[in-house]
Amino acid sequence: MSAHTGSAKGRGRVRVAVLGATGYAGVELIRILVQHPRIRLTAVTSQQFAGKQVSEVYPSLVGKCDLVLEEMQAGTIAPKTDLAFAALPHETSMDVVSDLVERGKRVIDLSADFRLHDPEVYLRWYSAHKAPDLLREAVYGLTELHSKAIAKARLVANPGCYPTGAVLGLAPLFAEKMVQGTVLIDAKSGVTGAGRTSAVELSFSEVNENFKAYNVGVHRHTPEIEQELSLIAKRSVFVLFTPHLVPMSRGILSTMYVGLKKSPGVPKLTELYRNFYRSDPFIRILPEGSFPQTKEVRGSNDCAIGFRYDSRVGWLVVITAIDNLVKGAAGQAVQNMNLMCGWPEVEGLRGSAVVP
Amino acid sequence: MSAHTGSAKGRGRVRVAVLGATGYAGVELIRILVQHPRIRLTAVTSQQFAGKQVSEVYPSLVGKCDLVLEEMQAGTIAPKTDLAFAALPHETSMDVVSDLVERGKRVIDLSADFRLHDPEVYLRWYSAHKAPDLLREAVYGLTELHSKAIAKARLVANPGCYPTGAVLGLAPLFAEKMVQGTVLIDAKSGVTGAGRTSAVELSFSEVNENFKAYNVGVHRHTPEIEQELSLIAKRSVFVLFTPHLVPMSRGILSTMYVGLKKSPGVPKLTELYRNFYRSDPFIRILPEGSFPQTKEVRGSNDCAIGFRYDSRVGWLVVITAIDNLVKGAAGQAVQNMNLMCGWPEVEGLRGSAVVP
Amino acid sequence: MSAHTGSAKGRGRVRVAVLGATGYAGVELIRILVQHPRIRLTAVTSQQFAGKQVSEVYPSLVGKCDLVLEEMQAGTIAPKTDLAFAALPHETSMDVVSDLVERGKRVIDLSADFRLHDPEVYLRWYSAHKAPDLLREAVYGLTELHSKAIAKARLVANPGCYPTGAVLGLAPLFAEKMVQGTVLIDAKSGVTGAGRTSAVELSFSEVNENFKAYNVGVHRHTPEIEQELSLIAKRSVFVLFTPHLVPMSRGILSTMYVGLKKSPGVPKLTELYRNFYRSDPFIRILPEGSFPQTKEVRGSNDCAIGFRYDSRVGWLVVITAIDNLVKGAAGQAVQNMNLMCGWPEVEGLRGSAVVP
Amino acid sequence: MSAHTGSAKGRGRVRVAVLGATGYAGVELIRILVQHPRIRLTAVTSQQFAGKQVSEVYPSLVGKCDLVLEEMQAGTIAPKTDLAFAALPHETSMDVVSDLVERGKRVIDLSADFRLHDPEVYLRWYSAHKAPDLLREAVYGLTELHSKAIAKARLVANPGCYPTGAVLGLAPLFAEKMVQGTVLIDAKSGVTGAGRTSAVELSFSEVNENFKAYNVGVHRHTPEIEQELSLIAKRSVFVLFTPHLVPMSRGILSTMYVGLKKSPGVPKLTELYRNFYRSDPFIRILPEGSFPQTKEVRGSNDCAIGFRYDSRVGWLVVITAIDNLVKGAAGQAVQNMNLMCGWPEVEGLRGSAVVP
Repeated sequence: MSAHTGSAKGRGRVRVAVLGATGYAGVELIRILVQHPRIRLTAVTSQQFAGKQVSEVYPSLVGKCDLVLEEMQAGTIAPKTDLAFAALPHETSMDVVSDLVERGKRVIDLSADFRLHDPEVYLRWYSAHKAPDLLREAVYGLTELHSKAIAKARLVANPGCYPTGAVLGLAPLFAEKMVQGTVLIDAKSGVTGAGRTSAVELSFSEVNENFKAYNVGVHRHTPEIEQELSLIAKRSVFVLFTPHLVPMSRGILSTMYVGLKKSPGVPKLTELYRNFYRSDPFIRILPEGSFPQTKEVRGSNDCAIGFRYDSRVGWLVVITAIDNLVKGAAGQAVQNMNLMCGWPEVEGLRGSAVVP
Repeated sequence: MSAHTGSAKGRGRVRVAVLGATGYAGVELIRILVQHPRIRLTAVTSQQFAGKQVSEVYPSLVGKCDLVLEEMQAGTIAPKTDLAFAALPHETSMDVVSDLVERGKRVIDLSADFRLHDPEVYLRWYSAHKAPDLLREAVYGLTELHSKAIAKARLVANPGCYPTGAVLGLAPLFAEKMVQGTVLIDAKSGVTGAGRTSAVELSFSEVNENFKAYNVGVHRHTPEIEQELSLIAKRSVFVLFTPHLVPMSRGILSTMYVGLKKSPGVPKLTELYRNFYRSDPFIRILPEGSFPQTKEVRGSNDCAIGFRYDSRVGWLVVITAIDNLVKGAAGQAVQNMNLMCGWPEVEGLRGSAVVP
Repeated sequence: MSAHTGSAKGRGRVRVAVLGATGYAGVELIRILVQHPRIRLTAVTSQQFAGKQVSEVYPSLVGKCDLVLEEMQAGTIAPKTDLAFAALPHETSMDVVSDLVERGKRVIDLSADFRLHDPEVYLRWYSAHKAPDLLREAVYGLTELHSKAIAKARLVANPGCYPTGAVLGLAPLFAEKMVQGTVLIDAKSGVTGAGRTSAVELSFSEVNENFKAYNVGVHRHTPEIEQELSLIAKRSVFVLFTPHLVPMSRGILSTMYVGLKKSPGVPKLTELYRNFYRSDPFIRILPEGSFPQTKEVRGSNDCAIGFRYDSRVGWLVVITAIDNLVKGAAGQAVQNMNLMCGWPEVEGLRGSAVVP
Repeated sequence: MSAHTGSAKGRGRVRVAVLGATGYAGVELIRILVQHPRIRLTAVTSQQFAGKQVSEVYPSLVGKCDLVLEEMQAGTIAPKTDLAFAALPHETSMDVVSDLVERGKRVIDLSADFRLHDPEVYLRWYSAHKAPDLLREAVYGLTELHSKAIAKARLVANPGCYPTGAVLGLAPLFAEKMVQGTVLIDAKSGVTGAGRTSAVELSFSEVNENFKAYNVGVHRHTPEIEQELSLIAKRSVFVLFTPHLVPMSRGILSTMYVGLKKSPGVPKLTELYRNFYRSDPFIRILPEGSFPQTKEVRGSNDCAIGFRYDSRVGWLVVITAIDNLVKGAAGQAVQNMNLMCGWPEVEGLRGSAVVP
């Protein structure tokens, strides 16, 4: 048995840390980063497993990443890091992130702590924000929409998994001011979206052979979706967001119902979407009448989009599929890092979905 | 090893046949019927397995139903049958059913062949109907809505699985004329809804760890839903129906978005639903803010209904859960038989869901 | 909405309590017992949910069992109970059970606390036993092997799920003294065997799309299997027991490798098994060369047994399938109650497996 | 939307074809090969989908491999290919492979057609072999055992998935002549092992929530395992092989029971395994008492091995985990190509498992 990686490899590369490395977003970051040709992973942290090798917790990483997990200490992490991914719980992330940014480190935060630009909105859906100035500065990291700002950002707030799937499917319509009325977002997620957790209701025996909605109308991703759509539309947009739990590990399918001001015709819609995303390597616009399935993006950073205008009733149905842990979390975070470092957007993310 | 059933048992009972006994609806009918105290199963048919015992095909039935499968011949089946369940493919069922009804047998047809009252509509979604008079006579077997007509019917057209879940959740609103605009029905079904079939796209490797929509806007259950809602509303009702495939065996969750003419207030809605279904033992109205999951009805004839009015956006969300093979097929068929024979509606259907 | 059960129903019936009613064995007991024609459920207990209706915790029971969960207090439970099922955790069950037996109640204990006849063995695999005399008195409730003793018992120790599947498949061979050497038991269980629990390693995201062995060679069901086989063989029997976790909810398949003293020939083996279980309604001996699958017993009290003698290598392969929550727990407990009360063994257990 | 791959890329690389590109081994080959830095994919064939782009059949490949599928014609494929992977059905592969080898192409055959060195054995388990000389010449492609012969081979017979998992776990023991008696191999496979097929018994509704053995004692991988173990042991070795079907897509766990001539002690066993595989980057020997799970190798080319000697009964339990489509098929095929071309063994195969 020998390691895949030579020891001399990686000198001169950007030094990267993963904070909260043993959660599902954390381990997915490591899976991607150990293959990334321009970075070197220098630190991984974990409160629960500090002192162990990350490859003891995740044997799949043996020989690929055998770093010892540290407790999170900005004073220890900062000196050996150029850029940090924070995959920490909401409301605890903001302290760590603020500290690292103050120390001059660039940070990509995968928690919700810096996604909502308005501290009042954060207060309403989470709690009082402890770093409101940094909150206002942070760039929302939906790469396809904010690439220029991301490239220059000190702090990128990586989007939630649901908002990624929803906003990517709706943005072209709002940009063209075609939408009227409330958009209805019926989203279905695999279970890893809930993170690595021991809740009874996420145990196999409860989830398997079961399907349910949860947090109907009150899910915390609602204001995030509305913020981004409102920015695009340049008006206040409201959505009705209904998440569901699917008995599978990965993937989000978002079925969205949109009232249009007038029927645009299918060819024009296809053209609109293709044009809007013409420079975006991870967006796949399906031919008319085709719809994506989550399996075709599983393990990849792709977002597949399909739609159909139903002339019987005058509604447009848009469906998007992403892997919640990749485009919905770790993959998009790496995509943002690529922009921040001036590298090709697809670096380290070229792998296609693992099918079947 | 000995059989559970004594040979002398069942004299004087109503004699029942299951046609198409080895499909999933067929075997579920047998599972229920062998426990039913007022009938005797006298014939089971199968094209594919004729000559074998049904318990050779489904070992779970050994000692409970060891009847030999016959080819479907009305001349053979009719003399030993008082009532027949037809669980045959669409478009082939109508001949068999017509023949049996002509021979004076009462029939509950689980195919789509007699569900649409208008031959023109049948033609548009299926093909030309060969027994239009019988089509017009057939009673749509959504038990909670048509119990009186079912009790007297010669032929009951057992509803589709999706229409059962959708119409039960919407009927009280349309009866009260509260609905405006198109109702959006986002439905999610387990895989047994597609029947016992060898299609590649229903193979385990394709369905597992996958989620997708299918037949978006063109599913054949659409006219069935619209027919029933229009009858209740006494006007033409249109719905946008989007079915999805869930990687589980049984269960349908229907998430429905309804525009209301005016906000009724939650207590009034609860009262409305409870009142509408006050005599219906299988309907479970959940407390405000609670939503059903498919597991809580798995294997039972129950339909659980929850709802929430979202005052932020002015839409009502209604969610129903059924087992597609029970309330969505075999269970409702037995419920209809009970009415046709003047027995308690719950006879043979008292089992609660198999959880977890 | 109305309840299925009339309030006057059940007078004169045996009064039954379920202790630990909200675990998976507990709720499965209730599912079976509410359909049982000779008992009346009078008490259900739960530490976690005391004060709630059991149907609030398990909505599938609404209208079927709406009893309020009590804290376990022998002084309160005993007066309203003739017979109690204890589905409590190991090592806490023994106190409750002892108390109830002292108060003259008959008890069926689904924990491991009274399964091992020898307090020394209990000490080695669990801890010091607090009621060694009662331990020695308790009857091991593998119904097919100990029916006479069960009928008269004050206390029945309901077998573990793995021992049920293993011993039923091996008993006829040991009874005929045909076995030589160590028997190798490679068992695979669905996840409900671990109970209703919040462990991370039983969360959906960990178990789904995964297969593993656990507790290899050290599982606590080992001494239970060896005790029963040794009693049958009238010598010390040792087994190597390797349990595995299957990504499914219910079912145990036990693949067992047996060295035979001499090849008996297949017809003789079939005859041996059929003869051994000739009076046992839940045992299904499959034809030569056929093997059971877990789905054919799912939700039923059946145990299906298949075997094949491999003359190339001189080993016998025996495979059994049970539902771990039914024949492996709640169903067998009810079967034992039936014997204890002098009722037909199949009372309340006639339902066939829920397939597919 | 733009492609990930530039058109000028890949000149001067080895030209590779995948025959049978739309089966599961075929698409997995493409997933790996499009990331491989030293080859260029020049042809993909499919009988069923000829004329379509492979990315129409598998949308996950859009922008990564948009080659048009051709019918298999040696005269067309050979001129544009240096090396071919044949992922064709057994018994049809041998003609195609023979033709290509005659035309001077190197071939890695993923079918069973060239795995058994002895035409008599092939005849007994399959049918009469049409190219017995080539059969005798072909090198069995279990990379860790035959790396030198593979490097020089014209034709490599890529091992079956089960033999890969079994032989890798047993080889060190047979090499040291430590084994006595029959080895019992209890193997459990995900469903993709059966290929992309429409059989009813592989449909989701049949496989989900089910576990079963199949082909007990008669599976065609038996002679393959025995051939390899006999070569290592330099004597005739017999195994009893029992495969099972797990309701998951990918992964094989092989639990193997080995009688040892004498107990070696655990440290010595660990040393033996580590030493035997000291130059093999994909083999992971777990610490004493640890056992692998399939999820830790899912999507990777790793084989993880754990063991425990049970001194109570004197048997050694060895457990191995592989991904049946990677180390059990496409990954090992690429590993073999790397050796044949003189490249690092891990080229294109450095990705770690996709967890969770």
